[in-house]
Amino acid sequence: MNTLKVLSCVAARDALRGSSVTLLLQNQPRKGISMRPVHKTKDTIDNSEYPRKVFSGIQPTGALHLGNYLGAVQNWTKLQNAKEDVSFCIVDMHSLTVPQDPITLRENIFHMAAAMLACGIDPEKSTLFVQSAVKEHAELSWILGCMTTMARLGHLPQYKEKTRAVKEVPLGLFVYPVLQAADIMLYKSTHVPVGEDQIQHIQLTQHLARTFNTKYGNTFPICHAVISDKSAARIRSLRDPSKKMSKSDVDPKAVISLTDDADVIIEKVKKAVTDFCSDVHYSPETRQGVSNLISIHSLLSGKSVQQICDEAKSIDTGKYKMIVAEEIVEHLRPIRNKINQQLLRRNELVYLLEMGAEKARETAAATLAEVKQKLGMGALPNMPAILEHKEEVKVIPKAKKPVVETKKVGDVEVPLVPKQQLRVEKKQQMRVEIQTNTDMDLNVPPKLDIKTAAPASKPAEASLAVTTKALVPKKSMDANEVKGDKQQKEIKI
Amino acid sequence: MNTLKVLSCVAARDALRGSSVTLLLQNQPRKGISMRPVHKTKDTIDNSEYPRKVFSGIQPTGALHLGNYLGAVQNWTKLQNAKEDVSFCIVDMHSLTVPQDPITLRENIFHMAAAMLACGIDPEKSTLFVQSAVKEHAELSWILGCMTTMARLGHLPQYKEKTRAVKEVPLGLFVYPVLQAADIMLYKSTHVPVGEDQIQHIQLTQHLARTFNTKYGNTFPICHAVISDKSAARIRSLRDPSKKMSKSDVDPKAVISLTDDADVIIEKVKKAVTDFCSDVHYSPETRQGVSNLISIHSLLSGKSVQQICDEAKSIDTGKYKMIVAEEIVEHLRPIRNKINQQLLRRNELVYLLEMGAEKARETAAATLAEVKQKLGMGALPNMPAILEHKEEVKVIPKAKKPVVETKKVGDVEVPLVPKQQLRVEKKQQMRVEIQTNTDMDLNVPPKLDIKTAAPASKPAEASLAVTTKALVPKKSMDANEVKGDKQQKEIKI
Repeated sequence: MNTLKVLSCVAARDALRGSSVTLLLQNQPRKGISMRPVHKTKDTIDNSEYPRKVFSGIQPTGALHLGNYLGAVQNWTKLQNAKEDVSFCIVDMHSLTVPQDPITLRENIFHMAAAMLACGIDPEKSTLFVQSAVKEHAELSWILGCMTTMARLGHLPQYKEKTRAVKEVPLGLFVYPVLQAADIMLYKSTHVPVGEDQIQHIQLTQHLARTFNTKYGNTFPICHAVISDKSAARIRSLRDPSKKMSKSDVDPKAVISLTDDADVIIEKVKKAVTDFCSDVHYSPETRQGVSNLISIHSLLSGKSVQQICDEAKSIDTGKYKMIVAEEIVEHLRPIRNKINQQLLRRNELVYLLEMGAEKARETAAATLAEVKQKLGMGALPNMPAILEHKEEVKVIPKAKKPVVETKKVGDVEVPLVPKQQLRVEKKQQMRVEIQTNTDMDLNVPPKLDIKTAAPASKPAEASLAVTTKALVPKKSMDANEVKGDKQQKEIKI
Repeated sequence: MNTLKVLSCVAARDALRGSSVTLLLQNQPRKGISMRPVHKTKDTIDNSEYPRKVFSGIQPTGALHLGNYLGAVQNWTKLQNAKEDVSFCIVDMHSLTVPQDPITLRENIFHMAAAMLACGIDPEKSTLFVQSAVKEHAELSWILGCMTTMARLGHLPQYKEKTRAVKEVPLGLFVYPVLQAADIMLYKSTHVPVGEDQIQHIQLTQHLARTFNTKYGNTFPICHAVISDKSAARIRSLRDPSKKMSKSDVDPKAVISLTDDADVIIEKVKKAVTDFCSDVHYSPETRQGVSNLISIHSLLSGKSVQQICDEAKSIDTGKYKMIVAEEIVEHLRPIRNKINQQLLRRNELVYLLEMGAEKARETAAATLAEVKQKLGMGALPNMPAILEHKEEVKVIPKAKKPVVETKKVGDVEVPLVPKQQLRVEKKQQMRVEIQTNTDMDLNVPPKLDIKTAAPASKPAEASLAVTTKALVPKKSMDANEVKGDKQQKEIKI
């Protein structure tokens, strides 16, 4: 299997500032795709609680080609340099869903890592790691698998497409969207750059996050799919411009690899299929070949399509091809050199990937500990949050009862202590129990609150909400219903 | 979900010495079950390479009942005390395949652990741990899932049975036999005590082990299913003796829990359904009720069925019930007390389970490192073993060639150095490479050999086997073909 599968495509913070990247929010319905969540969701789920995190999974399928570079990787570096929290995960576990030669797989992992570094991914700024180095991917995948139905996975278009010609369908092809969901959710990722063919998988991820949050309390953000700009994502084959440039192309001349040397690039561009019209004119519908070359030229040089066409007015497509080839050679030369240098320094690569994995593991382990605790898995000394607070609610009134004196009014026993005082006492007791929260700075923006306090504070907040709602009169509750209200309520009382 | 699901049943080393336990070897065909491996297998696969290891998975479904105790747990302690290497895994990940309440799940894990300890499982002798505490279970499950076909899982009778009444089938129910295979293979287990309904899952495990071994070199033993003795495994419901005693019984009087106190036990046995015939007579076909009581009595007291019937000649079933009740009460009293004591010492339980997990992790991590390396996953500095040894086999003869002087005999070039010397040189070189093995005590029984040297030595051994087979004359090879032969061969030369 040599097809390069880049699960992710393009996105940048710039996107939000009007560049060529579009954001697909989870609530924007897409033609023919129902974005309506299948399960009941709390409308209160709000990603602003979670820090922005971008997650991108890349299959290790050997060297990148020009289409990947312009369609995806170039934009990842933009994201990284815009100081987004970006994780790049070389998903070798996904590779196993189709037969792999062990030596090739290991080589491809190194090649992909080298290419990513050469294209500008900086392991100091981003997290670059190999999926199988973080054991929690498989663990969360199992847990999420138990929340997914067979029918839902069977209806995914990618599964139908991939298995059409396969006689004996391996389980991996059926289950991998769940692993993909685990990849994303493990880091509580909020944004996931993907190709359009992956939208249904992001919907599955959103569905699983909602299901989990509904059952076990808010844990995961609902991730956004980030869809790439079409012109950049669809660099076309040099031999058949009606198709996307793809590494699985049977004609090696159709694809420019980032590791091709100058002669090879010039040869490939010279042989690029155009048409009988010799002038350089951009018309992607009618003249796909030459328009593809202009697109490549424009994306590499930063010049507009118009400017390129103006400059090439006096020359024919033959001569223009040489200009494009020159542009590609010049742009890719430093990248190719860096890839080759990096591949010679294997131990450095291993070190960088292990450092990345270590960084990833920290978040992954925290998420999984939280998930396991909420599900009641394992034998942690403390009980799942739900129980602790159920017991608390049960036990406190019993313990309080004997202290409350009552008097008979007719046939009914009425407590001597006014209800208000009982309420205050209960709350005071709870305040002691959730003291880990009360020393938080309430002026910190809410997303930081959650980050630092997440697993411990959630349950306490939840049970508090239940009891306060039952006791505080309707009017005062409404007045308090703003963000970060729970601690404030206590302090006001 | 309250059904107690004990994946494993009975076995003991005693079994092999003629006790009440039967061994089902993987090559014995069962009626209606094809034991023929689907993939080509090497007939050379021989479990004698691997140390004997027994693996037992138990679903945490709350307290054990008398049927579990007599049908399974009592025999596990025999296994343990026969100095077998036994692992007991509380499989909480399997529990997730059906909806779970987090609090109940966590409680059930503690209860199961407490019951196991009370029944005599000694954490010093055996490995008792919770599945989710060892991350490698999920990892190996993913890897094995990529080697399983959808069709094979869909045809498993347990899947068909469990999903018959389920509208939305969760993925977990489909995939769990693969996790079960991973549980077993992770510890290179050779023997797996199971109920008869689990035989197909053991066959799947055998198939996956064979597939892996064929593709990537010998890594896993082909495990044996160990089937329990029928009379012990089938303690019947007290209310309907045509059914097995099962925790999911709607009538609580049908089941004696290990935590029932004396009064409850006496009450349940008094109400046990027998028949209108008042004499105490063993006839499991025609008088299931009273025969069930006699079975219980016999298994608890160690008396034979005949002896019991003789002793009860003069009394009726009503009085006999009191004798049985007394026997159960006396036998279970220390167990019940230990369970309750253990449950009060939660932190000790947590500690014991964590120690068990730590022990399990050691083996699990070594197996997974070996598997990942063989598959080319991750970014380990060295290449997968297959490559290294392919090169080795290629390189050594080339490097040696110039040293060997030859002379022409007729048209054929004959080396001056005798072949024997060449062989010795090669082996010496290899001995340096596997020196981690050579300092092993060769008097240690073979199962320890393998245990200490497994992941590092295997590839070297494998290549050694290839080269020696090619070079050593047939006769001397046969003479050496005894257990733990490879190192001995070296030393003899």
